[in-house]
Amino acid sequence: MREVITSLQNPKVKKAVKLADRKERNATGLFLIEGYREIKHAADSAVVFQTLFVCSEFFLGTNENALIDLIRNRGVEVVVCSQQVFQKLSYRDRPDGLLAIAVQMQLSLKDFIANFTAKKDPFLVVAEAIEKPGNLGTILRSADAAGVNGVIVCDRCTDIYNPNVVRASIGTLFTIPVVEASTVETLRWLQEQKIKVVAATPSAEEEFTRIHLTGGIAIAVGTEQLGLSETWMQAADLKVRIPMYGVADSLNVATATTLLLYEAVRQRQ
Amino acid sequence: MREVITSLQNPKVKKAVKLADRKERNATGLFLIEGYREIKHAADSAVVFQTLFVCSEFFLGTNENALIDLIRNRGVEVVVCSQQVFQKLSYRDRPDGLLAIAVQMQLSLKDFIANFTAKKDPFLVVAEAIEKPGNLGTILRSADAAGVNGVIVCDRCTDIYNPNVVRASIGTLFTIPVVEASTVETLRWLQEQKIKVVAATPSAEEEFTRIHLTGGIAIAVGTEQLGLSETWMQAADLKVRIPMYGVADSLNVATATTLLLYEAVRQRQ
Repeated sequence: MREVITSLQNPKVKKAVKLADRKERNATGLFLIEGYREIKHAADSAVVFQTLFVCSEFFLGTNENALIDLIRNRGVEVVVCSQQVFQKLSYRDRPDGLLAIAVQMQLSLKDFIANFTAKKDPFLVVAEAIEKPGNLGTILRSADAAGVNGVIVCDRCTDIYNPNVVRASIGTLFTIPVVEASTVETLRWLQEQKIKVVAATPSAEEEFTRIHLTGGIAIAVGTEQLGLSETWMQAADLKVRIPMYGVADSLNVATATTLLLYEAVRQRQ
Repeated sequence: MREVITSLQNPKVKKAVKLADRKERNATGLFLIEGYREIKHAADSAVVFQTLFVCSEFFLGTNENALIDLIRNRGVEVVVCSQQVFQKLSYRDRPDGLLAIAVQMQLSLKDFIANFTAKKDPFLVVAEAIEKPGNLGTILRSADAAGVNGVIVCDRCTDIYNPNVVRASIGTLFTIPVVEASTVETLRWLQEQKIKVVAATPSAEEEFTRIHLTGGIAIAVGTEQLGLSETWMQAADLKVRIPMYGVADSLNVATATTLLLYEAVRQRQ
């Protein structure tokens, strides 16, 4: 029987707790992945794990041990914790007994481009300066569902390795190419590739269902409060309007992104 | 010059702080509304205020005083707070200096129905047992935007008066008819009215863009983890599938609801 960590003062536990903090993530290049589904998606992609914390009392399913074995067989340290310790590590209301420290992927636009040259009719999302981790994670989840070729996070406000991005993305952060890049370099590349930038704005004349969203497109969305910056708005090749029939003047940014993504899906079928 | 409350021990402050707790909301029939936009929507609808807390140091705009006067002229107590006190009351990262105690609307299905008899082609949302306040609020925001006639919250998990529902709804909780009702009474009424229940499920044959969403419809959505209950699934007149091209097997519930709402909007134009 493996040793069970029961102390919150254990250095491994303290290291993981610290990674809830952005500064610590930036300094170490590490981040946390919590949850079976999220860790499974990470394990199925190229994510490198450093430590896996487990607490079997919290397991919800029957496949946890197979996933733990898979990760252990890659030479990753598996640490068994008491319920109290795991609860301290967890950032969920209902932990499911799995939490990992992993190495940030740090994909650059250059890496992204390198894998991109041969794609026909690219289908991308650009997320500019999204503030809330839950919104960025939900955008990633919808981008995965819509089958995009990648997501470019420009001028980030939210750290894409924030635990709540990982969580709201349900691990799709690991399954679609996600890069962080500046607006300048992103726009230059999109223009070189003749990928059209699609922007939603209340001032657009045409509704989003009446504009052709076929061919190479990048759906660009901006901050919760102010939408896209002037730079992106001016660079937009296609401006579309989401009709609003109530009192509110905008949708949540992740839901608006999803509408545009699925309208493109509908047209591209 | 009005007295400024600077003590966290002030009974009015303590009363407001307690309303963050669901038990206290249930016991008192009161709830909190924070933010200019949210309080404005509430003031424009039939919401009854009890107390308005203000802290001008946090104001972001120029219309706050007009809104405060409007509410004060209805006989509502206006309480000026120090920054420290307001920050204690606020549940936001960036408070905007306005927070109100208001009376819960407590609309029943009966009230809802009373206002409903004459509507042609009703367009409704049924939200069953949604757990996260942010999701329920975002569903309300999208329902407002899509111009629905009302939202029925069935077998609630999340209290619709949770501060995060108010916030994510950006106050549309007050501008569209929202009622809480049981599944049994809701289904009975929908069937009497010949309003078709639309349910999204991965096992449906037809994609949501290929099913007629015209006429009287209620878009029904269920919990984040498990979707709609068996009762609702069996009662569904139309089952639709949202195509998923990635690794994840579902969308966030609020984004899925929004897709169905706007597909209905597109078809009903």
